[in-house]
Amino acid sequence: MNVLITGGAGFLGRKLCAALLKRGELTDSRGQTRAIRRVRLFDVVAASQDDPRVESLIGDIADADDVRAALGNDTDSVFHLAAVVSGEAEQNFDLGMRVNVDGTRVLLEACRALSQLQGYPPKVIFTSSLAVFGGPLPDPVPDAWPLTPQSSYGAQKAIGELLLNDMSRKGFIDGRALRLPTICVRPGRPNKAASSFLSSIIREPLNGAEAICPVEPSLRVWLLSPRRAIENLILAHELPATAFGHTRSINVPGLSVRVGEMVQALRDVAGDEVANRVRFQRDDAIERIVASWPAAFTATFGRALGMQADPDFASIVRAYLEDECR
Amino acid sequence: MNVLITGGAGFLGRKLCAALLKRGELTDSRGQTRAIRRVRLFDVVAASQDDPRVESLIGDIADADDVRAALGNDTDSVFHLAAVVSGEAEQNFDLGMRVNVDGTRVLLEACRALSQLQGYPPKVIFTSSLAVFGGPLPDPVPDAWPLTPQSSYGAQKAIGELLLNDMSRKGFIDGRALRLPTICVRPGRPNKAASSFLSSIIREPLNGAEAICPVEPSLRVWLLSPRRAIENLILAHELPATAFGHTRSINVPGLSVRVGEMVQALRDVAGDEVANRVRFQRDDAIERIVASWPAAFTATFGRALGMQADPDFASIVRAYLEDECR
Repeated sequence: MNVLITGGAGFLGRKLCAALLKRGELTDSRGQTRAIRRVRLFDVVAASQDDPRVESLIGDIADADDVRAALGNDTDSVFHLAAVVSGEAEQNFDLGMRVNVDGTRVLLEACRALSQLQGYPPKVIFTSSLAVFGGPLPDPVPDAWPLTPQSSYGAQKAIGELLLNDMSRKGFIDGRALRLPTICVRPGRPNKAASSFLSSIIREPLNGAEAICPVEPSLRVWLLSPRRAIENLILAHELPATAFGHTRSINVPGLSVRVGEMVQALRDVAGDEVANRVRFQRDDAIERIVASWPAAFTATFGRALGMQADPDFASIVRAYLEDECR
Repeated sequence: MNVLITGGAGFLGRKLCAALLKRGELTDSRGQTRAIRRVRLFDVVAASQDDPRVESLIGDIADADDVRAALGNDTDSVFHLAAVVSGEAEQNFDLGMRVNVDGTRVLLEACRALSQLQGYPPKVIFTSSLAVFGGPLPDPVPDAWPLTPQSSYGAQKAIGELLLNDMSRKGFIDGRALRLPTICVRPGRPNKAASSFLSSIIREPLNGAEAICPVEPSLRVWLLSPRRAIENLILAHELPATAFGHTRSINVPGLSVRVGEMVQALRDVAGDEVANRVRFQRDDAIERIVASWPAAFTATFGRALGMQADPDFASIVRAYLEDECR
């Protein structure tokens, strides 16, 4: 069992890699559960590797040669995490199209070619996003609701879902698209995602630094901890193709919480001195994007598949302290 | 006012061209109503031209140079009808992707470049399809229903809609996507659309030939006459951008009718001898595709915009006789 993780040098890719190595085995599209021999981390930068089963490979997700080299002739499963994030895709339309649309298509086409070589299709787990939704939305959003994204990132992820669904229907790949809630708390530094502040307002104060919250405390968001995200990605991988019907796209369960409640949970867990480091200062561009995303989903199908959300935001803060601050 | 029609040598393109020339003027994206100086018909084959305002241009919709040449530096409006039809897109995935996805993207990107040159975005009227819907569907399908197409044609049209919507939101183009019902009765010969028989079973018997109906008489379909299709395309063009909110995609009103009722209407209009030329002989592949399409829509938004369906199938048969059999 050989695994490819695109965006493998990123925070989620590295966490996923560690979880897969710890687990030790996965089930391929033929239903055979096999030991993991290799996890290849494909990214624009090198990934650290401290396990003999891990390989780091630098390449461009939109370059067909690079992607074919990453797959080789013996890849059973792909976790496709590589993407240009929401804020950057909105600022740079062409870059977002290249990475989020062309990159996904190049990867799926390479998987299709590999399927013919191997005799069975690679499983492809694609991280889509709640940003595929936009416009007037019921609260909570039901599973049967149209995708009318109001950001280029959302449109590009929705296109990726359509490609993955159709190519799965055709039997070219065995895909699953997870519409992830905003992942929080991310370690490391802020990125160009419009949602980046949702991690910053917890992470920075815990590290002794100030953080700016660019939206109203009353804004509700839909969150998932990195731990749960990894669990749900692996769960989605392990499901048989027969678990799916007319769609491979899943609204992943999350926690619906107001930004002000997040800061209160930080206060409860870490105290006033830490929580007082959050400063509210509106940024209309960011608020407009984040407010266009839905704040709650029924996630009926995802729950039926066994996916789980975090119980409350305080436990998300505590998980971050346990995983990243020891 | 200069107009480009892609797929301009096709039946709908030629009809649209004639209607535009008769109308004589259109309103551009700045709201200026101007006389039509040129209608350029772009297609893989030459289009007949008997009006000095009409130009025929042969080219490949997925070739950026060809498409730029077709737009020139002075095109105000594009009707994008060029497509690989449903049956062919299902048989030849790569051809469908090339024409329906790459072709649409190339065209929209060329319009974006032209917008920067002209100082205002071209209007782009895109013929999407009811095939963007699939899977379990309520009857009738409401406007707010997800696109989970069960054919490659449907997936490719849905991708085109996402591109058109996002590029309209960004101001690169001024787009409108019309999810057309099945157009019936088409003149000419059968094509590779899975829905081709819906025209054949009326057209061939009227021309004295037998026709095979590959689905059960009880199968319900969602139809629109060529006349109404043209009217609705021009109506969509003339609407100001402010008529749209979070989406530029419109479910076009149609007529919901059973295939058996279509044959009965043919009998009522043209007599037993004609109607008895229809022979029922199942083709599972065709029935599977056509049965996956919805048979009725509320088309609430489309009706609110002023779009109209045909009143009954007998009037569709009579319109065909008037327009094509004189």
